[in-house]
Amino acid sequence: MSGSTAGQVIRCKAAVAWEAGKPLVIEEVEVAPPQAMEVRLKILFTALCHTDVYFWEAKGQTPLFPRIFGHEAGGIVESVGEGVTELKPGDHVLPVFTGECKECSHCKSEESNMCNLLRINTDRGVMLNDGKSRFSIRGKPIYHFVGTSTFSEYTVVHVGCVAKINPDAPLDKVCVLSCGISTGLGATLNVAKPKKGSSVAIFGLGAVGLAAAEGARLAGASRIIGVDLNPKRFLEAMQFGVTEFVNPKDYEKPVQEVIAAMTDGGVDRSVECTGNINAMISAFECVHDGWGVAVLVGVPSKEDAFKTHPMNFLNERTLKGTFFGNYKPRSDLPSVVEKYMTKELELEKFITHEVPFSEINKAFEYMLKGESIRCVIRMDA
Amino acid sequence: MSGSTAGQVIRCKAAVAWEAGKPLVIEEVEVAPPQAMEVRLKILFTALCHTDVYFWEAKGQTPLFPRIFGHEAGGIVESVGEGVTELKPGDHVLPVFTGECKECSHCKSEESNMCNLLRINTDRGVMLNDGKSRFSIRGKPIYHFVGTSTFSEYTVVHVGCVAKINPDAPLDKVCVLSCGISTGLGATLNVAKPKKGSSVAIFGLGAVGLAAAEGARLAGASRIIGVDLNPKRFLEAMQFGVTEFVNPKDYEKPVQEVIAAMTDGGVDRSVECTGNINAMISAFECVHDGWGVAVLVGVPSKEDAFKTHPMNFLNERTLKGTFFGNYKPRSDLPSVVEKYMTKELELEKFITHEVPFSEINKAFEYMLKGESIRCVIRMDA
Repeated sequence: MSGSTAGQVIRCKAAVAWEAGKPLVIEEVEVAPPQAMEVRLKILFTALCHTDVYFWEAKGQTPLFPRIFGHEAGGIVESVGEGVTELKPGDHVLPVFTGECKECSHCKSEESNMCNLLRINTDRGVMLNDGKSRFSIRGKPIYHFVGTSTFSEYTVVHVGCVAKINPDAPLDKVCVLSCGISTGLGATLNVAKPKKGSSVAIFGLGAVGLAAAEGARLAGASRIIGVDLNPKRFLEAMQFGVTEFVNPKDYEKPVQEVIAAMTDGGVDRSVECTGNINAMISAFECVHDGWGVAVLVGVPSKEDAFKTHPMNFLNERTLKGTFFGNYKPRSDLPSVVEKYMTKELELEKFITHEVPFSEINKAFEYMLKGESIRCVIRMDA
Repeated sequence: MSGSTAGQVIRCKAAVAWEAGKPLVIEEVEVAPPQAMEVRLKILFTALCHTDVYFWEAKGQTPLFPRIFGHEAGGIVESVGEGVTELKPGDHVLPVFTGECKECSHCKSEESNMCNLLRINTDRGVMLNDGKSRFSIRGKPIYHFVGTSTFSEYTVVHVGCVAKINPDAPLDKVCVLSCGISTGLGATLNVAKPKKGSSVAIFGLGAVGLAAAEGARLAGASRIIGVDLNPKRFLEAMQFGVTEFVNPKDYEKPVQEVIAAMTDGGVDRSVECTGNINAMISAFECVHDGWGVAVLVGVPSKEDAFKTHPMNFLNERTLKGTFFGNYKPRSDLPSVVEKYMTKELELEKFITHEVPFSEINKAFEYMLKGESIRCVIRMDA
C-alpha cells in the first residue's frame, strides 16, 4: 500500500471537532503527504485521554476549531518525508504529543525530556515545517492537535514525535503507552524511584495515578496508599497494587497528617496525579523527613501557588516535577513496550472499554461520566 | 594523662556565657567524668560559628543561661564512659552538634543524617543519659550547648556525636569541619552534585556559602556564580572558585531572571546559604528547567512560607533541603578530613583569624563586624 499512496493526498475518515464541546463528526478528509522530517501514519488504534477532552471543551483556552484531536495511538508508517532515515513504511510506531529532536540541550541532557524544538504545544494547530495543516476538507484546512491528531485514519507527524516499537507488540494494547500510562508509570519508575519494600502514596486514582501505582508495584513497594475523594475508586485501584485507601473527606485533620500517622512519620515516596494545588502540598508534606521524595505530575491552574514551610525542605525532603514520566519519546518508549511484552507491565487492566471509530463520541461519554480508565477506539471498525 | 584524670572531676578553664549578649567570662569549672555512652574530650582548638552567636544573643528564643557555647572544635579523647568501645583515650576527634546513633531509621537509611536520638537540639542544656549537666561552678550547674560546649578545655559529649579522625590531621585546621564548612561543602558535593563543567549559583557568600562554592570547585563546575548583597564579598569569594558575581541590588528585575539571562535559561545547580525566604525562592527559580536542582541550606524564620508556581516543578526542576550537608557525623567526617590531607580541599583560606582562648570575645567581635570567615581559638594560649 505504501507504494501506491506515497507522495499523494490520501482521502480517509477523520473525526472532526467543529466546535468546542460538540460531538465529533466523522468526515472524509484529505491528508497531504509528509514534508521534510515528517511521516504519514496509518492509525490502527487510538485511545481517549483527558487532555483531548480538556481541549475539546476549550474552557479557559483560546479555542482552535475545526480540529482533529487524539494523541494516544498506535499505527504503521505509510510513507516518510525528505530527510527521514530512522523510519520506513511498515514500521510499527506510537505517535507522541511531545518530541525528541536529539539535537537540543534537553535531548542531549540525560535528565530532561523537554525537547526545545518539539516540546508539547497545545496552541499550535499546524506543522512546524511550513506553519500549515496537512488536513483539509474540500481545500479548507482543519487544525492539528499536539502534533498527533490521531482521530483520523491517516495523520502526519514530525519524525521526532514517533517512537518505533517492536512490530510484535499488539497495537490495540500498547497504544495506551503514548501518553497517560507512561506519564504515571515513569513518574514512579524514573523520578520517584521507590526502593523495594518501601511505602508510596498516590494522590488521584485516575488513569495516570493508577499507572503510578502500577509503577510502584513493579518497583516492589510494599505499601501503596491510594488517596482519592471518590471511595468507588479503591476496589478498582487494588488491581493496580494499591494496598490501602485514604479518602481525605473521612478525616478532620489534613491528609498529610493522616498518612504520617499511618507510616511512622511519612511515606518514602509520593506521586501527585490530580493537579489540585492542595493535593500537591499534601503530597509533599506527607513524605518522611530525611529521605522522602514527592513527585508532581498533575497540571495545576495558572493562578495556583505552591506554598509550604521551608523547614519541610530543610528536613531533607525532596520535591520534583515530571513531564511525560521523564521518558524521552523516541529513546525510551520502545523499552516500555518491552516491559509489556515480558508481562512485567500489565496494560489490559487499564483498557476498560473499546468502541469502533464510528462510535468515538461514546468514548467521550464514558470518560465524562468517570466510567472508563481507557477506552480504545478501533479505526477499522 | 588519661590515667591520672579518668573517673575524676577535672577542674579547667571554660568561657561561660552568664547572660544573653554579654561578653563570655573565663571561669574555672568542674567537668564531671563521662557517663555511659559518653566521652570526655580535651579541646585543643575551637572555632566560632554564627549559630553560637545566634543562641548567645538569644533573640526570639527561650534563653538558657549560664551556658557554655562552642561546637566547632578539634580535640583528643581524655576518657570514655561505660559502653564506649569505638573510642579510646588519645584518639583525635571532632565533636559534632548532631549525632549518629547507628541504630535508628535515619541512621540506617543511606540518605538521611537526621538521627532520631541525637539530632541537634538547641533547647536542651543537659546530657541525654541523666538529664543533667556535666559542668558546674562550685556545685552550680552550667548548661551545655548542642551537646558539645567546646568553649571549655574539657567537655563531655555523647559518643554518637564524636567523629574519630586521622591523628596526623592538624586539629587547628580540621576543627572547622565540625560544622559550617562541612555543611556548605556537603550541600554541594552530596546533595546538589554538580557535574564537571556545569554552572552553579551560590546564594550568600558567608562561611557556608564559600564552602558550597569550594564544593562546586572540587566538583569541577566551570561557572560558579556568587550572589550576595555585599559587593565586598566578591574578591574574597574568588579564592573559593567563584567566577562571577551578582548583586541583586544592581538590578531592577528579580535575581532569578538575571541569572537565567546569564546562563541560557538557568544554572544547572543552586545552593541557598542565607536563610532568607526570598533568596530561597530565587535560588529555586534560577535553575534550568529539565534538569536543574536547587538545594536549601540556610535556616528560615518560623513564619516564612516558601511560595512558587507549581509549573516551576512540573518543568522538571528539583528542590531539596539539607542538614549538615547530608554528612553522617561519625561515618562521613573522617573522609572529609582526608580530602584536606590530600590537598584536594583547602581549609586555610577559611581561617582568617586566630585568637588565644583568653581573648575569645574578640572572635565574637570579628564575626559581628563581618570581618572573619572563621576565627580559630587556641585553647592552650
